[in-house]
Amino acid sequence: MHKNGFLVVISGPSGGGKGTVVRRVREMMPELALSVSATTRPPRVGEEDGREYYFLDRDAFEEMVAREEMLEYTSYCGNYYGTPKKEAQRIMASGKNMILEIEVEGAEQVKRLYPDAVSIMLIPPTIEEMRQRLVGRGTEPIETVEKRLSRAAEEIQLAGEYDYIVINQRDEIEACAKQICEIIHAEGARTGRMTAEIEAFLI
Amino acid sequence: MHKNGFLVVISGPSGGGKGTVVRRVREMMPELALSVSATTRPPRVGEEDGREYYFLDRDAFEEMVAREEMLEYTSYCGNYYGTPKKEAQRIMASGKNMILEIEVEGAEQVKRLYPDAVSIMLIPPTIEEMRQRLVGRGTEPIETVEKRLSRAAEEIQLAGEYDYIVINQRDEIEACAKQICEIIHAEGARTGRMTAEIEAFLI
Repeated sequence: MHKNGFLVVISGPSGGGKGTVVRRVREMMPELALSVSATTRPPRVGEEDGREYYFLDRDAFEEMVAREEMLEYTSYCGNYYGTPKKEAQRIMASGKNMILEIEVEGAEQVKRLYPDAVSIMLIPPTIEEMRQRLVGRGTEPIETVEKRLSRAAEEIQLAGEYDYIVINQRDEIEACAKQICEIIHAEGARTGRMTAEIEAFLI
Repeated sequence: MHKNGFLVVISGPSGGGKGTVVRRVREMMPELALSVSATTRPPRVGEEDGREYYFLDRDAFEEMVAREEMLEYTSYCGNYYGTPKKEAQRIMASGKNMILEIEVEGAEQVKRLYPDAVSIMLIPPTIEEMRQRLVGRGTEPIETVEKRLSRAAEEIQLAGEYDYIVINQRDEIEACAKQICEIIHAEGARTGRMTAEIEAFLI
């Protein structure tokens, strides 16, 4: 009985602690696949094409974007970073579910190309807690913190477009990661993903 | 922050082991509420109105059905059994999620009245396993078993109208109950049920 995997998109305001939570989710569900991203930044010593990244030049990357071959992409410090669609398709065709942790902008792109993707927005419980978290890090001047907060408020306006909202309470990474695992398990039992099993009964 | 609870409907072919699984789910999630059903059968010694059942006469019951005040109802051995809508509303308004284990016919009624209900169909992995299960019980003549099986096959044709399909493998009640708990947890994080939290962030 062959089943395709599905795509899980985790997004939310940056500074909301997405990275930490997703790392924990991957430890809890090692069967989740991560895709190898493509980038235009040059390989560092020891990096291998197709392992850390697919290394592309700008023309090749932009061509892929134009042909809608990128599930999503973004530019950071003058380089492009993106998720090749083919890579995602290969993973899901193999029956694995795939997790993608991306910024809110990228998540919008993915939802447009893959309406079937399961989208989860991770948000801090309050803007005040997010402020404390960012100030506590001490890595950014106060103006940058305020800019991030107002951007977060804008991004959360888009929450309605996501399938799930998970509150990422500080010091409760474990509970938050567990909730995401439960969502992924539950989504596997969605009727649309169980047609093979329904047919198996009727044979 | 007040939140309404939601309704979880567990259904599926009878003889599929629904009862056992739901009992286990309730042990795992004691916070789930069960509603008190209404019935026209006379109270037995020790039974109290409003505790075991709401005891109604036929006229009163039929009037409630006519006024669409029953979430679902069925007749069994000459008596009616049903779930009063008001009872379900009271439970959900108190913030509790409510679980309802009913036959496929009743589930159709509930879905019509409460499109927001989370519906889960429990099915045995194959019709052959269901046959063995029914024969193994030894409580029914073989013709009844065959009748049940053909009815099960009909009922499973309705699977597409459910939100989730959970396979109820014999000897795996634990895994099956756990999957239902995960679905209920996940549904609590559905965006439509998280509006209060989204607003809390934006304040």
